[in-house]
Amino acid sequence: MNYEEWYKIEKLAKSWTLEAAQLLKDSFQNSLSITYKSHISDLVTNMDKNIEKFFIEKIQKTFPHHKVLGEEGYGDEIYDNAGIIWIIDPIDGTTNFIHQQSNFAISVGIYEDGIGKIGIIYDVAADDFYFAKVGEGAFLNNSKLNTLEKVTLTEAVVGINATWVGPNKRVNHENVQNIVKQSRGTRSYGSAAIELAFVAAGKIDAYMTMRLSPWDFAAGLILLNEVGGVVTKTNGEPISILEQNSILAAKPGLHEEMLEHLSK
Amino acid sequence: MNYEEWYKIEKLAKSWTLEAAQLLKDSFQNSLSITYKSHISDLVTNMDKNIEKFFIEKIQKTFPHHKVLGEEGYGDEIYDNAGIIWIIDPIDGTTNFIHQQSNFAISVGIYEDGIGKIGIIYDVAADDFYFAKVGEGAFLNNSKLNTLEKVTLTEAVVGINATWVGPNKRVNHENVQNIVKQSRGTRSYGSAAIELAFVAAGKIDAYMTMRLSPWDFAAGLILLNEVGGVVTKTNGEPISILEQNSILAAKPGLHEEMLEHLSK
Repeated sequence: MNYEEWYKIEKLAKSWTLEAAQLLKDSFQNSLSITYKSHISDLVTNMDKNIEKFFIEKIQKTFPHHKVLGEEGYGDEIYDNAGIIWIIDPIDGTTNFIHQQSNFAISVGIYEDGIGKIGIIYDVAADDFYFAKVGEGAFLNNSKLNTLEKVTLTEAVVGINATWVGPNKRVNHENVQNIVKQSRGTRSYGSAAIELAFVAAGKIDAYMTMRLSPWDFAAGLILLNEVGGVVTKTNGEPISILEQNSILAAKPGLHEEMLEHLSK
Repeated sequence: MNYEEWYKIEKLAKSWTLEAAQLLKDSFQNSLSITYKSHISDLVTNMDKNIEKFFIEKIQKTFPHHKVLGEEGYGDEIYDNAGIIWIIDPIDGTTNFIHQQSNFAISVGIYEDGIGKIGIIYDVAADDFYFAKVGEGAFLNNSKLNTLEKVTLTEAVVGINATWVGPNKRVNHENVQNIVKQSRGTRSYGSAAIELAFVAAGKIDAYMTMRLSPWDFAAGLILLNEVGGVVTKTNGEPISILEQNSILAAKPGLHEEMLEHLSK
């Protein structure tokens, strides 16, 4: 595809994301009278579906040959990387949406033949719009993000959820405990998309988790690639875009150091 | 002291906090040219000291009989609860200030004879101003906060740092792991003041940590008292305002349930 075509995709992906966020905020305003969390929970389920459908409708109409992979399952059946695939999470961090009405994001990653082309993570409540386009860099609200510099674990703030620090089926928790102990500190925000965006923006130095779906990481990976972040599975293997993966995203140097801990 | 006197204290505490935040933001703007974290680190150390001195100067001039307890140690030597004591953390969450330039707060708690009277937690980057006055309720940016309702652990989002989930000297980490496993999820933001404010505002359901200093929790306790939050040490004992304490702050019901886990 040529530059003009990608520019059109970029412009529309951005404006659809902002439109989707507005739908979300409007529906949320309406529901502020509902203070019961169970009702907000239903609202979220509906909004998840509606926003995914909103994207699919726009994409099918404008780019009939593109495919869509979404959390809610209204997209296409996708068997391989071929062509252009939009990978969408309408609301990443739904528990936060319900409990906090902040720290949730819309995540849109656009891939061509398996290569990340455009990534958008919109932290709606903070109004922080993260955007990356392959070869052109990553941005937070029009400020270009710096290339990530090497750090060591002892000077790093690591995004990791407490789940992985206790006994669990997916990782040797003693290795994780060693990472926690040696780091400067840990954080956990409850939205993988936001946590990957935070690594790209240098707000945290690494993020690791044992299980993410394509819509959780599709956009984050493109942001990270543009700023020199290193991303693999927690065993060092490359990530498959269309499957569930463990994720270790970190600054250079730190990635290697954490990988070493995790391989013990 | 009479109502008018406390109204004066309230007004000044609020405006000094906003002035202090402005000093912080100004100094931070100046330093944005400095992108090296070690330099930001020096800046934070200086700002911590300057803001504490700023408060002390204002308080000593306006209320010469009040005492001040601050993290940086420029305040008074305080041996008992008698009289009016301002307990101040100029920047709570300094690592976040350095790494993220967000998720840090100014915390001001004002006590009279050991009773919490006025609590302020200002999340500067989010521009979220939490305020409580004994008997008059707690507020977030002029919205009155609701009384906290009972929840169970299985429906709760718990603020807890990964440090306490692995082996450590202060708590049986297996009890903590059980809490983590049974909860709906955990979060960690790296600022105790903000985490206590989040519990008061219902954004998370509980917060626990094994070691906090008076300036970290002084304001948060007053907020929590106004919304029916339950706060004790993690062994259920009452908190001493002038000492380091462990803290378990939670919604009713949940507090009891977590205490039970921690006592095993």
